[in-house]
Amino acid sequence: MLDQLIENAAGRMVPTEINGCAAVPFQGVGKYRPEGRKAAPAVRTCADYPADGDKAVADLKTALKNAGLRDGMTVSSHHHFRNGDLVGNAVFEAAAALGVKDLRWFPSAAFPCHEPIIGHLESGVVRYIEGSMNGPLGNYCSTGKMRGMGVLRSHGGRWQAVQDGDVHIDIAVLAAPTADPFGNANGVMGPSACGLIGFGLVDSIYADHTIVVTDNLIPFPCIPWQIQGNNVDQVVVMDSVGDPSKIVSGTTQLTKSPDRLLIAELTAKFVREAGIMKDGFSFQAGAGGTALAFAIFLKEMMIDASVKARFVRGGSTKYLVEMLEEGLTDYILDGQTFDLDGVRSMRDNPCHQDTSPFTSYNFHGKGCFASMLDAVVLGATEVDVGFNANVVTHSDGRLLHGIGGWQNCLAGKCVILPIPSVRDRIPVIVDRVTTLCGPGELIDVVVTERGIAINPRRTDLLEAVKGSTLPIRSIEDLKVEVEAICGGVPAAPRLGEKIVAAIKWVDGTVIDCVRQVT
Amino acid sequence: MLDQLIENAAGRMVPTEINGCAAVPFQGVGKYRPEGRKAAPAVRTCADYPADGDKAVADLKTALKNAGLRDGMTVSSHHHFRNGDLVGNAVFEAAAALGVKDLRWFPSAAFPCHEPIIGHLESGVVRYIEGSMNGPLGNYCSTGKMRGMGVLRSHGGRWQAVQDGDVHIDIAVLAAPTADPFGNANGVMGPSACGLIGFGLVDSIYADHTIVVTDNLIPFPCIPWQIQGNNVDQVVVMDSVGDPSKIVSGTTQLTKSPDRLLIAELTAKFVREAGIMKDGFSFQAGAGGTALAFAIFLKEMMIDASVKARFVRGGSTKYLVEMLEEGLTDYILDGQTFDLDGVRSMRDNPCHQDTSPFTSYNFHGKGCFASMLDAVVLGATEVDVGFNANVVTHSDGRLLHGIGGWQNCLAGKCVILPIPSVRDRIPVIVDRVTTLCGPGELIDVVVTERGIAINPRRTDLLEAVKGSTLPIRSIEDLKVEVEAICGGVPAAPRLGEKIVAAIKWVDGTVIDCVRQVT
Repeated sequence: MLDQLIENAAGRMVPTEINGCAAVPFQGVGKYRPEGRKAAPAVRTCADYPADGDKAVADLKTALKNAGLRDGMTVSSHHHFRNGDLVGNAVFEAAAALGVKDLRWFPSAAFPCHEPIIGHLESGVVRYIEGSMNGPLGNYCSTGKMRGMGVLRSHGGRWQAVQDGDVHIDIAVLAAPTADPFGNANGVMGPSACGLIGFGLVDSIYADHTIVVTDNLIPFPCIPWQIQGNNVDQVVVMDSVGDPSKIVSGTTQLTKSPDRLLIAELTAKFVREAGIMKDGFSFQAGAGGTALAFAIFLKEMMIDASVKARFVRGGSTKYLVEMLEEGLTDYILDGQTFDLDGVRSMRDNPCHQDTSPFTSYNFHGKGCFASMLDAVVLGATEVDVGFNANVVTHSDGRLLHGIGGWQNCLAGKCVILPIPSVRDRIPVIVDRVTTLCGPGELIDVVVTERGIAINPRRTDLLEAVKGSTLPIRSIEDLKVEVEAICGGVPAAPRLGEKIVAAIKWVDGTVIDCVRQVT
Repeated sequence: MLDQLIENAAGRMVPTEINGCAAVPFQGVGKYRPEGRKAAPAVRTCADYPADGDKAVADLKTALKNAGLRDGMTVSSHHHFRNGDLVGNAVFEAAAALGVKDLRWFPSAAFPCHEPIIGHLESGVVRYIEGSMNGPLGNYCSTGKMRGMGVLRSHGGRWQAVQDGDVHIDIAVLAAPTADPFGNANGVMGPSACGLIGFGLVDSIYADHTIVVTDNLIPFPCIPWQIQGNNVDQVVVMDSVGDPSKIVSGTTQLTKSPDRLLIAELTAKFVREAGIMKDGFSFQAGAGGTALAFAIFLKEMMIDASVKARFVRGGSTKYLVEMLEEGLTDYILDGQTFDLDGVRSMRDNPCHQDTSPFTSYNFHGKGCFASMLDAVVLGATEVDVGFNANVVTHSDGRLLHGIGGWQNCLAGKCVILPIPSVRDRIPVIVDRVTTLCGPGELIDVVVTERGIAINPRRTDLLEAVKGSTLPIRSIEDLKVEVEAICGGVPAAPRLGEKIVAAIKWVDGTVIDCVRQVT
């Protein structure tokens, strides 16, 4: 196995081949130059589609059969309902009923609700998964039982991979809270409204065959059409496509921890003291509890200083919606609603704009929004003294989290990681992160309850906060203090040789890989 | 020259080669089966675009130079301002200043305001034009002076040609009433707001290089983004990109002619009597004066019968906007605003949805909206006894009109041509149309001031209006009567052998061609 590895520009040993395809090692930030042309879907003709626009078929099994599902195909689904998705499992139940084997599942992300896929992995219906795996499926992958390497991509990386032809989707299945028989679909209307369904946009454009599944079929036209029926082959009605109350699941609850509230407040103060919080600025805060608290603290500071943002990026929550409704920002640019206030606002407020990984994150486009953010607040499972960060594995090496838009957001002008210095008595600031997801040169500030470390590369930020009351420290200082508290450096994870998953960088190169947990 | 011609499925002699490329003769409605894959634009990288999203450059000349403009390239522009466009001419003035020659102009349509392009055709800056040519440029083309064959496509056919790679655009220049420095752009905001800019969408997706030109640059984000900056290379600010008061020019004025008002009323009565006007129905009426009057008559009938449409298709005018605002339709699906009421409504009313030729007209997609319309009301310069129609040339053979969405609309469920039987003492109903633009099998009803002719193929429509008071007659009867009035059959146009323009069908095949006027 070792002879298939090569050291990449970040000093990580990575495979040169992934699931039978050649892989390019990470070459440094912005260094890899793509060649060639975008994937080119087959030309279709209206002569093959119903003139009256009615593409409805009886059920998912019929649709998959019509689509020509067969062994070895790549099938995609999406995580717009996060842990409330009901379509991902239904697809593979139908595939199992059709007797199909060895499928590659290409979800935009898998959540604990998708644990039944383990049964399909064991029975051979699914061969392996390419996509972020939160929880049980990540754990399963870590054990080395999957018959193929997991491939984790950022949201933007997933668009890039499909657009560039790295991943060809045979059949895309798109859960839509509302759709018409032509296949126009959106996420803002209907009993299962979950916000937007932009993670499936790239699938609808590039897949050979696209199936829209809805529990709210309305007469043509379904407006807004976040997905355009002109890219859709069939429409299926199910009783329920998902439980929108579960989009709040996982990472999207406000923290009550005093330490984390302190971290959130320090982060907001940093943004203010560094001069980033000024009229017309922009920020993005993820869905983690600390990030949500940060937004609340920052909002108060903006009110006190009479500062208005030009735009804030969602994952939207009621906190961002309040900012929009109270006139503290002109726009929310939203990639994924994280609560039902977000859904309502996106439906009713034209200044709450849905986005897609194309607009926001695709590194192989003519620019994207990620690099225009003044401040970006993100989480991490580990950070090292080189400011490198890990977001997918725990310190025991277990793959338990997805990447989301995290890597893409590192393009922002000031990237801040507000994280506790210790989790479960294990230091979070380490010598070398277990899995490298983001290169240190892109991470500017680490905020902990014990102080704020600024990346020495950012002399401008060091200068900007000089003389402030902020507890600025070196990251090495923080690490030494934390290790003293925890009784030394954390134990190395017990890992085997087998590579169970590859971590792609935003440009499709391999930045690191994950090994089997023993 | 004759040996390069072949008879197509409509019995027309058409060239097998157009401007050096092989051309496929028309094979019958829905008969041509496309093969192959869509055009594949080059993969780009954000590393080559400014991280802060600012793509603004000094002027159009600089932008064209940066884009690598050189001899023989294909350059596109658009007719969103119709006769008020200021960008098309500016592009070729800049190209002339750069000393470039032999360009192919690929406009979505040319209007009389583009007469200065004749100077560039004469001087060699422009070699020839592919696109609908309304007025002086069409007349110039008719004289045979252009150094290349004109190619006329429908709006949907233009999308098809670019999507399928039949036409490769090197540089697209998009006039945008509002844009941000990243290139996001729309037509609903700003001093030059003209509605939507959807004819340029295909260019932005497939062109090698896209330049947005605006007279209203606003801070990022420009929302709505009818054009996405992620597809844009450069942004240029001009004093004015167009005069929106001129979108009303040409065909978009309500008729005052008693004959045409009668025709419009008969058309509306036909739609009612044939049972088409019922709850949930849909219709599209073009921008011609008679079509506008039809919409007004139909509206009154809908009110009287308490009938509500599900959607109406624009070209929107204040008459359609009134229907929407008075609750007579759920939606306007709009491809092109034809007056400032349309612009306002599209900006402010979420039920006034902008569309593109992709959603509405592209025949090489997975269906399109055109075939879902219950009734479509269109113009024509000539109709023959086989219900074949001409929309581009006059009876003297002169090319004076564009195709617009006309061919695409023929996919509707009931296609009605309300036309005067005589124009300038020349019969409009003839034995054989001068130029075939739409096959008779797709044209269902011809309404004249002398009576209504129903295509004998539509026995269902003949049955539906049996017993009504409508003046139903055969088209042969109408022709005989009209010829008697005009003193016989019209004189044949005086044409040379040289083919000056080809007429494409919606699938890219050649349905007819236009010969030099002598």
